Amino acid sequence: MSREYQGSDTVLDVGGLKIGGGTFHVVAGPCSVENQTQTLETAKVVKSYGATLFRGGAFKPRTSPYDFQGLGRDGLELLKQARAATGLPIVTEVMSPQDVAMVASYADILQIGARNAQNVPLLAEVAASGKVILLKRGVSGLIDEWLLAAEYICVHGNSQVILCERGIRTFEHACRNTLDLSAVAVAKKETHLPVFVDPSHAAGRFDMVIPLARAAVAVGADGLLVEVHPDPATALSDGGQQLKPKQFGQLMAEIRPIVEVMGKQMGGG
Amino acid sequence: MSREYQGSDTVLDVGGLKIGGGTFHVVAGPCSVENQTQTLETAKVVKSYGATLFRGGAFKPRTSPYDFQGLGRDGLELLKQARAATGLPIVTEVMSPQDVAMVASYADILQIGARNAQNVPLLAEVAASGKVILLKRGVSGLIDEWLLAAEYICVHGNSQVILCERGIRTFEHACRNTLDLSAVAVAKKETHLPVFVDPSHAAGRFDMVIPLARAAVAVGADGLLVEVHPDPATALSDGGQQLKPKQFGQLMAEIRPIVEVMGKQMGGG
Amino acid sequence: MSREYQGSDTVLDVGGLKIGGGTFHVVAGPCSVENQTQTLETAKVVKSYGATLFRGGAFKPRTSPYDFQGLGRDGLELLKQARAATGLPIVTEVMSPQDVAMVASYADILQIGARNAQNVPLLAEVAASGKVILLKRGVSGLIDEWLLAAEYICVHGNSQVILCERGIRTFEHACRNTLDLSAVAVAKKETHLPVFVDPSHAAGRFDMVIPLARAAVAVGADGLLVEVHPDPATALSDGGQQLKPKQFGQLMAEIRPIVEVMGKQMGGG
Amino acid sequence: MSREYQGSDTVLDVGGLKIGGGTFHVVAGPCSVENQTQTLETAKVVKSYGATLFRGGAFKPRTSPYDFQGLGRDGLELLKQARAATGLPIVTEVMSPQDVAMVASYADILQIGARNAQNVPLLAEVAASGKVILLKRGVSGLIDEWLLAAEYICVHGNSQVILCERGIRTFEHACRNTLDLSAVAVAKKETHLPVFVDPSHAAGRFDMVIPLARAAVAVGADGLLVEVHPDPATALSDGGQQLKPKQFGQLMAEIRPIVEVMGKQMGGG
Repeated sequence: MSREYQGSDTVLDVGGLKIGGGTFHVVAGPCSVENQTQTLETAKVVKSYGATLFRGGAFKPRTSPYDFQGLGRDGLELLKQARAATGLPIVTEVMSPQDVAMVASYADILQIGARNAQNVPLLAEVAASGKVILLKRGVSGLIDEWLLAAEYICVHGNSQVILCERGIRTFEHACRNTLDLSAVAVAKKETHLPVFVDPSHAAGRFDMVIPLARAAVAVGADGLLVEVHPDPATALSDGGQQLKPKQFGQLMAEIRPIVEVMGKQMGGG
Repeated sequence: MSREYQGSDTVLDVGGLKIGGGTFHVVAGPCSVENQTQTLETAKVVKSYGATLFRGGAFKPRTSPYDFQGLGRDGLELLKQARAATGLPIVTEVMSPQDVAMVASYADILQIGARNAQNVPLLAEVAASGKVILLKRGVSGLIDEWLLAAEYICVHGNSQVILCERGIRTFEHACRNTLDLSAVAVAKKETHLPVFVDPSHAAGRFDMVIPLARAAVAVGADGLLVEVHPDPATALSDGGQQLKPKQFGQLMAEIRPIVEVMGKQMGGG
Repeated sequence: MSREYQGSDTVLDVGGLKIGGGTFHVVAGPCSVENQTQTLETAKVVKSYGATLFRGGAFKPRTSPYDFQGLGRDGLELLKQARAATGLPIVTEVMSPQDVAMVASYADILQIGARNAQNVPLLAEVAASGKVILLKRGVSGLIDEWLLAAEYICVHGNSQVILCERGIRTFEHACRNTLDLSAVAVAKKETHLPVFVDPSHAAGRFDMVIPLARAAVAVGADGLLVEVHPDPATALSDGGQQLKPKQFGQLMAEIRPIVEVMGKQMGGG
Repeated sequence: MSREYQGSDTVLDVGGLKIGGGTFHVVAGPCSVENQTQTLETAKVVKSYGATLFRGGAFKPRTSPYDFQGLGRDGLELLKQARAATGLPIVTEVMSPQDVAMVASYADILQIGARNAQNVPLLAEVAASGKVILLKRGVSGLIDEWLLAAEYICVHGNSQVILCERGIRTFEHACRNTLDLSAVAVAKKETHLPVFVDPSHAAGRFDMVIPLARAAVAVGADGLLVEVHPDPATALSDGGQQLKPKQFGQLMAEIRPIVEVMGKQMGGG
């Protein structure tokens, strides 16, 4: 994945969308897919504000076994309906090697979550799916480990990888994690892959998402993952960090001129 | 797993060995199973010094795809031979849900490694095997997350869990990780499960293993995992942290009187 | 320092310069004042590119007693000459309570370095000087501790404080420290003080300074501290992170449009 | 301070007490000196249980300016009375270079606290006092930085240094800090200085102090600093981590046999 082997930026194709190079994409959607209304409503509203991909969790890696674990296959069906209604390609997480083929039959981009950043059997299996992989950095992953995880996907025959920084675990607890934007700059220098940033999981609180999103654009990221929920107060997971639709609209308005300053164009035009 | 539900210590039974309560066990063996000679020789020598269980990796979760990934099923066959030759029960890691049944057909204790400390599908699958599970804390795992991972195993119907502290990732790099012995004291207070310590992976260097092993006994651990290799300089993985057999003999000699001070007895008598 | 007591931004006055509110300042200069030529040359060139304050270390808090410790009072004399030659106000660090009066007789802004972020006697003494204080966050300082250090200055009668984020110590070592831009967003929300960012010390490598500077502007900082040296390869301290004058010119060119997007104006017009 | 220059352990003399080599000392006393009754009562009771030095804070480096800052010189007078009443040498912290001569006129050992671990002017000043210095590791101090701080004292002409590990700041918050006992083993290997451990500040909670104290002895420490208060619930600082006198008696009873296993003898016989 090193710039030593390929100097120019990798540009991935997802259903006609070009990811990487000079285009900037925002992937938006709820933390968890909860029901049809919530899913379709969110997909439509984030598209209206300029999101170009839709995200939502059907399989949720929760810390506690007593928390909501996701709708599973039913959730994937709802994501498929959202794509049919909006045309937005789907990004969703897969947690188990046994589920890869099934999830890949629904999703356009398979997400490897932070807890699975070094799950070698899973990395091998998603590589074999032939899908584009969005690979989150582990919550305590060294940049080197993150890039080597991308290498695991590559040696299994798939070089369509989007790197995603989502905050690291440090001593500071004002935000849930510490967003490491230097990791974006390092990854952009050392690899030719697109690098996205997830400010929602890093912040863990909605009021920090917009400033961190602006900073992510300015440091050189190629895209954002942002959690949006029609009514965060009733969300089944991570309510505190999800933006309301209007707040997401404000985020899009604030990042757009910085995307332009960076010499890029918004994926949705 | 809380003391609130069960005040007395859990005592597990592994082929007649009692783990937890007043007995102290040392699990020893090489980082990776490499070949028959290395495996059998190490098993015999660690038994001669008082180890009561044998460990060895057949499936290796390596950071880089270009490093040795383990012998797989052939390695499990060698572990089976080692058990036949010495009578020592086998502890070995399983990394993928698909491999659980196969690994469980060889091993006496299934190890969940630090990288998989929050791999929920794997936790569910090992629980279903009915085996005793040795659950390592994640390299950046909160104590709470570690205990909740044990809860995942429990809610899938298996309460035979050994917790294992193996060092956490901090800013300090004189050792590979920072062994957190306060986590042992906290886990002993809050749960009724046996708690082991792996000083080899924490230290990442052989010269720190013995002092950390002594400290682990004194803080109240119920057992140790120690890496031993007949010739660490030629090891296929983690050569720098594995003890030579004589050094392991010294470790056993140094911990024995501290085990007695703690009011426990060595598992091997 | 809380927004609860003062809703509007504090605007400080340093020799006629307004710091905070809608103005953005760049403080630039060498890590250490080394000699007259280096000092005057750097001051002139950073001014030519738009820096509005000049920084340079005369008292250096080095980790090793065998490293260069700074020119002391002779260095302050050189800074005074640089101000006379360029009109740029001087920012310099003071390390000892006994030196505060002397350093204050030369400097326009007294800097409290990261190692002294909780040095209570020093905080009290600089407060009494009546000068504007640039207060760096400790390398492992919680945001709360940083704000309480500002409170120490305040309770000693001086509310002219600029907060400065400079990276925190984490497990990641690709850069020297991890620049925590969420801390800037939190400090801007919770206090009415100006917040600056020092990307040079965070990065510890020159090639990451410009992307981090852009991100700092976009997250909402009110200013930057940037290390510039006419010939970093020969610098007596921190050579690897100092920008060459032309690189500093590039930094200024890249941040200017982002400052405008943020609705601020550059301090130098 | 390196073993390369002096192979054998440094043995310091404090009023006839030998520190280092084969003797183990426990320094005990309250976090803060609060009044005459509390001070004298604590000194007598810790002596009765075998403590060989008395500690108490007169100058307190508190995070918040609104917390109790210590009795200052009046506190030192109380410590002097405690020494007169018990014969125990006094260990107390000094925070400011200007106070060193005054504090040194009362104390037998000058303590440099974790917040001042890189306060170079203070290190130089305490070195010049000619007293034995107890040098705590910074809360985020690398082992190398800690040893270089000892070098600062040494290059200023004083090689009577006791190193003291007191826990480092990590992501884990079950205890206030993570006691890094590998740092003790590393410091014992690389230097010839005595190394003490402060389990009270590391734990931040009284119920973890005894297990950590046992582990500190077993890893190879030469002494302990333990906070003891006649009535922790009413303490003016750090009430949650101070032991009651009976708990301190239990600590002494539990460590004594481990000190013997380590081939050392208790300082008090």
